[in-house]
Amino acid sequence: MNERHKAVCLLSGGLDSSTCLAYALRQGFECYALSFDYGQRHRIELEAAARLAAQLGAARHRVVRIGLGELGGSALTGEGSVPKSRSPEEMTAGIPTTYVPARNTIFLALALGWAEILGAADIFIGVNAIDYSGYPDCRPEFIEAFEQVANLGTKAGVEGRVRFRIHAPLIRMSKAEIVKLAVELGVDLKLTHSCYDPAADGRPCGACDSCLLRRKGFAEAGVADPLEYPQ
Amino acid sequence: MNERHKAVCLLSGGLDSSTCLAYALRQGFECYALSFDYGQRHRIELEAAARLAAQLGAARHRVVRIGLGELGGSALTGEGSVPKSRSPEEMTAGIPTTYVPARNTIFLALALGWAEILGAADIFIGVNAIDYSGYPDCRPEFIEAFEQVANLGTKAGVEGRVRFRIHAPLIRMSKAEIVKLAVELGVDLKLTHSCYDPAADGRPCGACDSCLLRRKGFAEAGVADPLEYPQ
Repeated sequence: MNERHKAVCLLSGGLDSSTCLAYALRQGFECYALSFDYGQRHRIELEAAARLAAQLGAARHRVVRIGLGELGGSALTGEGSVPKSRSPEEMTAGIPTTYVPARNTIFLALALGWAEILGAADIFIGVNAIDYSGYPDCRPEFIEAFEQVANLGTKAGVEGRVRFRIHAPLIRMSKAEIVKLAVELGVDLKLTHSCYDPAADGRPCGACDSCLLRRKGFAEAGVADPLEYPQ
Repeated sequence: MNERHKAVCLLSGGLDSSTCLAYALRQGFECYALSFDYGQRHRIELEAAARLAAQLGAARHRVVRIGLGELGGSALTGEGSVPKSRSPEEMTAGIPTTYVPARNTIFLALALGWAEILGAADIFIGVNAIDYSGYPDCRPEFIEAFEQVANLGTKAGVEGRVRFRIHAPLIRMSKAEIVKLAVELGVDLKLTHSCYDPAADGRPCGACDSCLLRRKGFAEAGVADPLEYPQ
């Protein structure tokens, strides 16, 4: 194609979303990376997102503020503590306190708004239904339902100018497969930030669900994780 | 019922959403009113929303900030001018520049998040598909698609504890019928604010699509509009 198609890519700065962005770029899309400042306690991930957007070559990176803290309800936005050192069984047994209600619905809605403004038909989200830490809005049926909303609730969709597609290329991959894909696509893993509860200097805790899933993925992929964890 | 069921009610401070809130209260719900500060040029509507939430007896009223201005793209968030004095034919001929991309998807997503936190299954939105000024996210098929997303993308929905319902009680009513319903339900019409492009002192312009639809609705209902318009 002469002109590259535009895509909006949700980018948290973690391993999955960074790999997803690298994947969209490899597919030939001109990528518009979108991050959110929603009062998350691991706000340091926004710095990681900015560095990764630049490293990977996104056309633009925007951070939209959302006052989710107003509504309360999640350990990730300051209520309660982040659970640590849980076994894989504990992680998948239920939906954890780090779940932010309707987060991916909110993020995809904003990505959709930006896509419509940019004239983009494609939205990428790095969700994963295998090592997914029990979040309902990481499942294929949710992604499909949202695609319907996108096509019915927008000017571009209704006028038939655009058929929106929500891409979730990592949805059926294991964390180890994602690590390998990240390496293959040239993601600078040192820049990625996955921890829900980092130290003040930004170092990962090593024990929250997100750290544990990441470490297990690296171990299974046989790749050294460049991040330093506490002993 | 001994304990009233909770509902989240989107409240812009306009005629439609205020009537919708009054309707939900009349149905017996304990109502949690939700407004958004998204950089709209008619931000004065947030004061109207607060007064109406109090007048009508909402249990709580929250204003969530969303940095939509970051993304650009609408006359309502400062780009371009608000069209004036359009005929009914012009209004329904296409989707106007005051359309905010994916706005109702974004608002419903945040309402869903709050509903889940509150333990509410019901969400009310005052959209209207008749005198709707050409917005795609005011149509019944959009509302139904979003209901699917709500039940698939939330902890409460997936665990089957809650069956979310998106109520759009005004969706098939004319503006005149809404005015009559507002009067019947005791909405203080003097407090409602509908204008997209108000003067610095808050008075409505009288000529934007929203003012024109409102004035026509009051005229057809045979009700005097308590707002003062320029001559």
